[in-house]
Amino acid sequence: MPALALGVDLGGTNARAAVVNRDSGEIGAAHRESHRDRSPAAVVEVVAHAVREAARAEGREPRSFDQVGVGVADQCLGRTGVVLCAPNLGWNDVPFGQMLETALGVKVRIANDLSAAAWGERRFGAARGLDHVVLVFVGSGVGSGLILGGHLHEGQRGIAGELGHVKVRPMRPTTKVRRCGCGELGCLEAYTSGVNIAARVREELAAGAASGVRDLVQGDLGRVSASVLDAAYAAGDPYARALWEEVSDLLGRAISGVVTLLNPERVILGGGVLLGCPELHRLVRQVFDEKVSRSAAVGLTLERAFLADDAGVIGAALLE
Amino acid sequence: MPALALGVDLGGTNARAAVVNRDSGEIGAAHRESHRDRSPAAVVEVVAHAVREAARAEGREPRSFDQVGVGVADQCLGRTGVVLCAPNLGWNDVPFGQMLETALGVKVRIANDLSAAAWGERRFGAARGLDHVVLVFVGSGVGSGLILGGHLHEGQRGIAGELGHVKVRPMRPTTKVRRCGCGELGCLEAYTSGVNIAARVREELAAGAASGVRDLVQGDLGRVSASVLDAAYAAGDPYARALWEEVSDLLGRAISGVVTLLNPERVILGGGVLLGCPELHRLVRQVFDEKVSRSAAVGLTLERAFLADDAGVIGAALLE
Repeated sequence: MPALALGVDLGGTNARAAVVNRDSGEIGAAHRESHRDRSPAAVVEVVAHAVREAARAEGREPRSFDQVGVGVADQCLGRTGVVLCAPNLGWNDVPFGQMLETALGVKVRIANDLSAAAWGERRFGAARGLDHVVLVFVGSGVGSGLILGGHLHEGQRGIAGELGHVKVRPMRPTTKVRRCGCGELGCLEAYTSGVNIAARVREELAAGAASGVRDLVQGDLGRVSASVLDAAYAAGDPYARALWEEVSDLLGRAISGVVTLLNPERVILGGGVLLGCPELHRLVRQVFDEKVSRSAAVGLTLERAFLADDAGVIGAALLE
Repeated sequence: MPALALGVDLGGTNARAAVVNRDSGEIGAAHRESHRDRSPAAVVEVVAHAVREAARAEGREPRSFDQVGVGVADQCLGRTGVVLCAPNLGWNDVPFGQMLETALGVKVRIANDLSAAAWGERRFGAARGLDHVVLVFVGSGVGSGLILGGHLHEGQRGIAGELGHVKVRPMRPTTKVRRCGCGELGCLEAYTSGVNIAARVREELAAGAASGVRDLVQGDLGRVSASVLDAAYAAGDPYARALWEEVSDLLGRAISGVVTLLNPERVILGGGVLLGCPELHRLVRQVFDEKVSRSAAVGLTLERAFLADDAGVIGAALLE
């Protein structure tokens, strides 16, 4: 297998492409490009351009690689290259893999971005060489990537790992059922992603809830974020305390449930909300420790994601 | 690979052994033997005897087989042969595989009984030839067996599939947190297994709850069972209605969560409670349909377990 591979991490606002050394995990000069126009044709053009530039930085062209791997935010059918549903891009049933193949003249392999990240972390990051790994990401969205028995687990259609769309029941019966970006009601993501936490807090403050958060953002509700809530929690704000108790209960239970079901040896925690909110992170770990089955906790370690932004590109490049 | 294999299904009260034809799935005369004495040494003797009798029925002896596969109720470490925790047998950390190997003079491979059942159903039953299969069993216990990417998924220590020990939150805030047979609080099994349903109903009736169940069992609370509750539900009993609503909510959510996470192509439903309670089964399916993510439901079928008691023996015999 050639030592160099090409990977792309495609998000809602930009694409990042780089050449990756399969043996060392080193990545060449990464090329990042934004796509204001989110139509599939425009995004394909942007991605193709980023890929060409990344290859050129190494004195190559895309055709000289076996394949280009792309991690795509949201649901995609890995084997067919179809992006089923990507709310961030506003896409439904887009044959993205095929379109990019045509544009580049090289085989394209797509996968969910968190599957790609898990695969990258397993090769060169926080789960090097391990065979049973669950990566959980809580950022603007919520999801997971699963390495089971040494294989990337993508499921029958390629959409496994959708932990963010598992339906949950919040601890307070008064918490209203929330609609997720996917269109369904009561998804884990609808209560725990950064975007949804901020939206909920804005609504509740606008409806008159008392909280120190109002002062922290100096009355500008547009500045509400998970980090602000974490600061309010640390300052002892009762509103933040109740909210973090509910959010951490949902996340800690969800992660412990996955571990009890799948018996991995490592859980990797990633994403801006989990990694950028130390109080929430601590609470989630507490709930996790309390709810995980004792026997599944033996031999298990939890680690922070290690490769950060590079995980997706590296993992995508190494997709099989 | 030789056409004949030897499998054992070891439960809390008896062991069943049979020779299985790998190509046809036909099983020879099964030998079932009870073990009143649950000490590991006594159970090993009973299993070894059942294995010898099953082999003899085919004119063979155990040593002429490559290995003996054993599905064990509850948690075991497949690779090492250690049974970690089997409440039904009262065992903790028993090196059962090794003990049986010594007794029989042939290699022994153990696995969780539901892993074995899933493997059997996948080869000759309700999921023939499929690569992504989740078997969910609700009987005296609650658990699952996972076939992912064509492989039996046992996890890092061999205890994957413990859906029954995922912690859940019942829909009624007044429902008291229940302790599971595993010793932990709030497990799915503690609310939904046949044994636990009956125990809860007995407690609540003894504490004065009004229900038609009392008449159905003619005042003898020892006769309370999941089937009786199902009959009471069908007759419109409000107590049974509220209970079944809670139990089906827990089961339907749990199964839909596994499907959303793992994206299987088939779910097999088995066990006396799910298969013997038509009203509960219908309610569980309703909750499942409501809670499963739309995209994970595409290409998915739910089937009843097909091989019944034989699944465990067949699957155990074919373990790799």
